Amino acid sequence: MDIYKFTIPEIIFGRGCLEYAGICAKQLGASRIFVVSDHGVENAGWVKRLLDILEKENLDYVYYCDVTPNPKDFQIHNGAELYKDAKSDVILALGGGSPMDAAKGIALLVSNGGDIQDYEGVNKVGYPLPPMVFIPTTMGSESDISQFVVVTDVKREIKMTIISRTLMPNITLRDPSLLTTLSRDLIIGPLFDSLSHAVESYVSPIANSFTETQSLKGLDILAQNIRPALETLEPKYLENVATAGIYAGMAFSNASVGLGHALAHALGGMYDVTHGIAHCLLLPSVMRFNLPSCEKKMAKISKIVTETELHTNEATALLGIESIEKLRDDLRVPSQLREILTDKSNLKKISKNAVNDTCMLTNPRDATWEDMYRIFCEVW
Amino acid sequence: MDIYKFTIPEIIFGRGCLEYAGICAKQLGASRIFVVSDHGVENAGWVKRLLDILEKENLDYVYYCDVTPNPKDFQIHNGAELYKDAKSDVILALGGGSPMDAAKGIALLVSNGGDIQDYEGVNKVGYPLPPMVFIPTTMGSESDISQFVVVTDVKREIKMTIISRTLMPNITLRDPSLLTTLSRDLIIGPLFDSLSHAVESYVSPIANSFTETQSLKGLDILAQNIRPALETLEPKYLENVATAGIYAGMAFSNASVGLGHALAHALGGMYDVTHGIAHCLLLPSVMRFNLPSCEKKMAKISKIVTETELHTNEATALLGIESIEKLRDDLRVPSQLREILTDKSNLKKISKNAVNDTCMLTNPRDATWEDMYRIFCEVW
Repeated sequence: MDIYKFTIPEIIFGRGCLEYAGICAKQLGASRIFVVSDHGVENAGWVKRLLDILEKENLDYVYYCDVTPNPKDFQIHNGAELYKDAKSDVILALGGGSPMDAAKGIALLVSNGGDIQDYEGVNKVGYPLPPMVFIPTTMGSESDISQFVVVTDVKREIKMTIISRTLMPNITLRDPSLLTTLSRDLIIGPLFDSLSHAVESYVSPIANSFTETQSLKGLDILAQNIRPALETLEPKYLENVATAGIYAGMAFSNASVGLGHALAHALGGMYDVTHGIAHCLLLPSVMRFNLPSCEKKMAKISKIVTETELHTNEATALLGIESIEKLRDDLRVPSQLREILTDKSNLKKISKNAVNDTCMLTNPRDATWEDMYRIFCEVW
Repeated sequence: MDIYKFTIPEIIFGRGCLEYAGICAKQLGASRIFVVSDHGVENAGWVKRLLDILEKENLDYVYYCDVTPNPKDFQIHNGAELYKDAKSDVILALGGGSPMDAAKGIALLVSNGGDIQDYEGVNKVGYPLPPMVFIPTTMGSESDISQFVVVTDVKREIKMTIISRTLMPNITLRDPSLLTTLSRDLIIGPLFDSLSHAVESYVSPIANSFTETQSLKGLDILAQNIRPALETLEPKYLENVATAGIYAGMAFSNASVGLGHALAHALGGMYDVTHGIAHCLLLPSVMRFNLPSCEKKMAKISKIVTETELHTNEATALLGIESIEKLRDDLRVPSQLREILTDKSNLKKISKNAVNDTCMLTNPRDATWEDMYRIFCEVW
């Protein structure tokens, strides 16, 4: 029996809990809050709503929004300078994975110094970060739950993964009413990202009883709710998938992810591919590749997704993978890389980058860059 | 949809993780640790082992062990004085529920002042507590996971329940090898306490998706492992029940408990009845009383315990309750109050005390003192 950890932030969940943003920041000792968001969230009206709440609580703040999808190293370096100039003391992120990861990167630099590149890998953060309150406006990244941050190194054209206990926010405010301003297209990617978190954390070699329970529960809720959530965009289904996302986040934050994320990071480092859409393309092929190393667990996943058990674990598992492909086809979401990229000339380079991704430490099956290249060609 | 919270301490689990006690205390800024334990844990050799670990890490400490089962208010007041005199900065508890609850009480008084009675009830703690690292040597109380502390008010002859987010330790070190020095008799009570946590948290009116998942998983593991754990005392089964205890702890810390705990507290306040043994006596009767208010959930509990479904929820639920009674009978554990008390003259007074217990705020069915008295008579 190995020694393992299970840790999550304080989770506050429910429609309207955005109202507690100021109170939570105060509890953590805020006098000048550093708010990180982006233009998309601004346009949906949520930034104004948050700043009104902070003002009502008489809280001073500085606002930073120079964050793009797949947040870049320089955006984090610039944010850290602004944080220090403003003498901020608590970081509040409002948005999807990009503003949240940018906020984590900023928190890391202002407390530990240096460049964001210095911390690539596992457990390289020496000093505690300033308190963090995160408010996701979408789901999928689960950055608000996790010990992960993913940042694009512009020069190397890769997405770096940094994993440390200190990167977990103190409090996450999960207000599902924030999901109601999202279009169907903006939800698809995050849903497949969550699905990938549930699957990859479950088959991770460092999974344990606590992470496995959350992986399977997340998967179960996703299996039942992805279709109605995307078909209707009704609050009850959006709440369900948001709940599933939290389960998947609790799992992968502690058990990590694998090949699918290594490939998606490498792809996103070279091209500004939406992270969740990369999982739409890759998840079934990644599951097929990993199958020989975790047949029993893949069969369990399939039983939850299909409610069917065949004569062997392998057959059952394959049925589950096919059913995820069918879900993707039914939903008319991208299933081929050529739908989002114009040429395949960089796929070898991307594969070579993916081999070094931190997430490969926790994939159940070893993969060479040639294996990865084959997967990219398969989904081309 | 209500707004709810889900929060747990950092959990470190695995054989040998006791070795990390000093490192964890250091991470939380310890320079002089206040160690709380009791004579039973001393006799098992664990206190010496812990102090050796702290010395190896060059950590200074003060040791306090004037703690009895059902820890008393004055023991906490004395401990708080010692903590202040010693200028301690981190609290480390090693033991069962009693040393852990005493440690929480001490942490509360040294940071918030006054008497322990001042904090009875929910959310009455104003200031943060000193950092706490807890190392359970048994299971059942799950004080190391929970936001609860239960202390005997000697004068009023009651056990007070105090619930506050601040009472949750920072880190729990769950080393299942510590369970191996326990006798069968010392494990029975904690196992029934865990069972009661899983059941009562599941039917709590403030249960939510996250607590329900942990309740049911804990229940499932307990149902499969209580018999072999008690029959063999083998490490693998002890590890499984310890894992179940953590699940039950995650659930009840966030969803609370109900009537069973109100009755057990009232009983333990008047007589030094072991808390877990009170649950051996009370759990089936409490489940029967609550059944009309939560038939569907009780049926779900039964399906996990018995793997059987009958034609109605009520019938299924009753089967589960009977199976818990059968488990108790098979294990030859106390099933009648008269086996542990000599007279029933105080049962009315105890029932009247139980009505005011904080846990009654989260019982699915209202209960008068007469209802409670009837339950006590039923199990007499």
